[in-house]
Amino acid sequence: MGGGEIENPNHYEVGRKLGFLIAKEGWVLLNGGRNSGIMEASARGAKEGGGLTIGILPGDNPSWASEYIDIPILTGIGFARNYINVQTSEVVVALPGKTGTISEIALALNIGKIVISLNFYLGKLFNEYLKTGQLIYAGKPEEVIELIKNIFKKIHSKEM
Amino acid sequence: MGGGEIENPNHYEVGRKLGFLIAKEGWVLLNGGRNSGIMEASARGAKEGGGLTIGILPGDNPSWASEYIDIPILTGIGFARNYINVQTSEVVVALPGKTGTISEIALALNIGKIVISLNFYLGKLFNEYLKTGQLIYAGKPEEVIELIKNIFKKIHSKEM
Amino acid sequence: MGGGEIENPNHYEVGRKLGFLIAKEGWVLLNGGRNSGIMEASARGAKEGGGLTIGILPGDNPSWASEYIDIPILTGIGFARNYINVQTSEVVVALPGKTGTISEIALALNIGKIVISLNFYLGKLFNEYLKTGQLIYAGKPEEVIELIKNIFKKIHSKEM
Amino acid sequence: MGGGEIENPNHYEVGRKLGFLIAKEGWVLLNGGRNSGIMEASARGAKEGGGLTIGILPGDNPSWASEYIDIPILTGIGFARNYINVQTSEVVVALPGKTGTISEIALALNIGKIVISLNFYLGKLFNEYLKTGQLIYAGKPEEVIELIKNIFKKIHSKEM
Repeated sequence: MGGGEIENPNHYEVGRKLGFLIAKEGWVLLNGGRNSGIMEASARGAKEGGGLTIGILPGDNPSWASEYIDIPILTGIGFARNYINVQTSEVVVALPGKTGTISEIALALNIGKIVISLNFYLGKLFNEYLKTGQLIYAGKPEEVIELIKNIFKKIHSKEM
Repeated sequence: MGGGEIENPNHYEVGRKLGFLIAKEGWVLLNGGRNSGIMEASARGAKEGGGLTIGILPGDNPSWASEYIDIPILTGIGFARNYINVQTSEVVVALPGKTGTISEIALALNIGKIVISLNFYLGKLFNEYLKTGQLIYAGKPEEVIELIKNIFKKIHSKEM
Repeated sequence: MGGGEIENPNHYEVGRKLGFLIAKEGWVLLNGGRNSGIMEASARGAKEGGGLTIGILPGDNPSWASEYIDIPILTGIGFARNYINVQTSEVVVALPGKTGTISEIALALNIGKIVISLNFYLGKLFNEYLKTGQLIYAGKPEEVIELIKNIFKKIHSKEM
Repeated sequence: MGGGEIENPNHYEVGRKLGFLIAKEGWVLLNGGRNSGIMEASARGAKEGGGLTIGILPGDNPSWASEYIDIPILTGIGFARNYINVQTSEVVVALPGKTGTISEIALALNIGKIVISLNFYLGKLFNEYLKTGQLIYAGKPEEVIELIKNIFKKIHSKEM
């Protein structure tokens, strides 16, 4: 998750790198699917890494999807599609954004998902989730990958 | 908007008072419709004030609605119904809550709604909206009513 | 429920009459809320009868609502809002329409709602619902009102 | 699309065969994702054919997905997810079902999708769509594949 508009061009490269590394792990990248901001950056990186990309789009028009999205899901339900993004993701990674991204982070925490916030400081509002480990800060894409590996280990061992 | 569970019983009375005053102004109260927390408190207050109450429910079962809701809208779309609450409201008033409420506040700001936060301090994360006046803090239900009156005056004068 | 576009002007008057009679019974009229076709006709009739009208709109723009709608619910979820219409209604009345209306009738039957079809013959496809009484044909608005009264009696007596 | 419960076991094998042939063409199979009826049959066939399968699930619980679904999209929006299925599909193929399937067919026709009905006769209600070629009847999975190839040729040539 992350801003549809990017103010700091460095964020684009971080999103792209993260997408690349996700693909290299063999994981599927899912995002909001549009051809702008962190959505485009991460999908582009994932395709450059040879991965599979899913975009949960707000509208019903496939031409709104980023060219780096393999599977555009045309929800037609507008902003409410953010819930589908968050519910469908095994782990949510948030990059810098505005209220749209904050809304998704809050929702993800609300429904029990682990959120990794990459270079996006959220202030005191979510402090209790930091304490329980449901919210984790990271400074680099590589760090995010290590965190996700650990999370998957835990989820996996529970299932057995 | 506000917590489905209330930790501080005073918040229940504040929500009830706010609902009462909204009804006394002849405004329609819309909330998430469930029989708990701020939802029940505000709907109860509105009915005590002789008002009309609309509840946008997550499920398809009318028995989940608070007894103080006149018109239960059974969306069946789960958490995604929060978008409908926020989009349908002319002004959003937020009482203390957790991530569910924060998610709604962020969404409301994202789609351009004015948010009045009653006794719920949101930290630095939303500072830019304070500056533009899209986010306003209030300390008492009476203050909220005065703020809404001013907002309606501006909206109304624009329409003419 | 019924067509957003009306080919036979008589259908407009039938929808308007039905809305009027619903209001006279003190019932709330709920429809898709737009300012066209059967939606406008039935809401207009209900207002002429002094009733309360709720419109479940596909978009997030209040100007799309019919002027005869008291409470526009701005879902922003597009066509998917048809599910909310049907789930929220205690009884579904279908007037002539095309695939949009047929889709709502099929959904209503699917989730166990009683459907009264007014001047709209559906062919053999729904025959099994005719047999069980879940689908009922009516020829006049007055007949629909009598049918709904009987349905409410049954629902009411079950609750006691 | 097709029944969640199958009365005629032959329908299961037809759905499975269709999924197999879709996969062999290199197309992605998308359905409602649950582990029952035509959904399971078609996803199973597609996996047996080495294809990619997407399931648009009504709930938020991944354990509801069929084991033959590669990418479960957890919408959490209940029945309203049927709209996403239909909007996202380039071509809709309907196998025998009840009101749920009829509702999806009507919706697909309503939003301009081509519907191929495989062994599922729909009566006079949709006759006008037969005439325009938006609704096509087929008797065998192989026939469906040929029809889709022709549809893709037309869509493709338009894009150039």
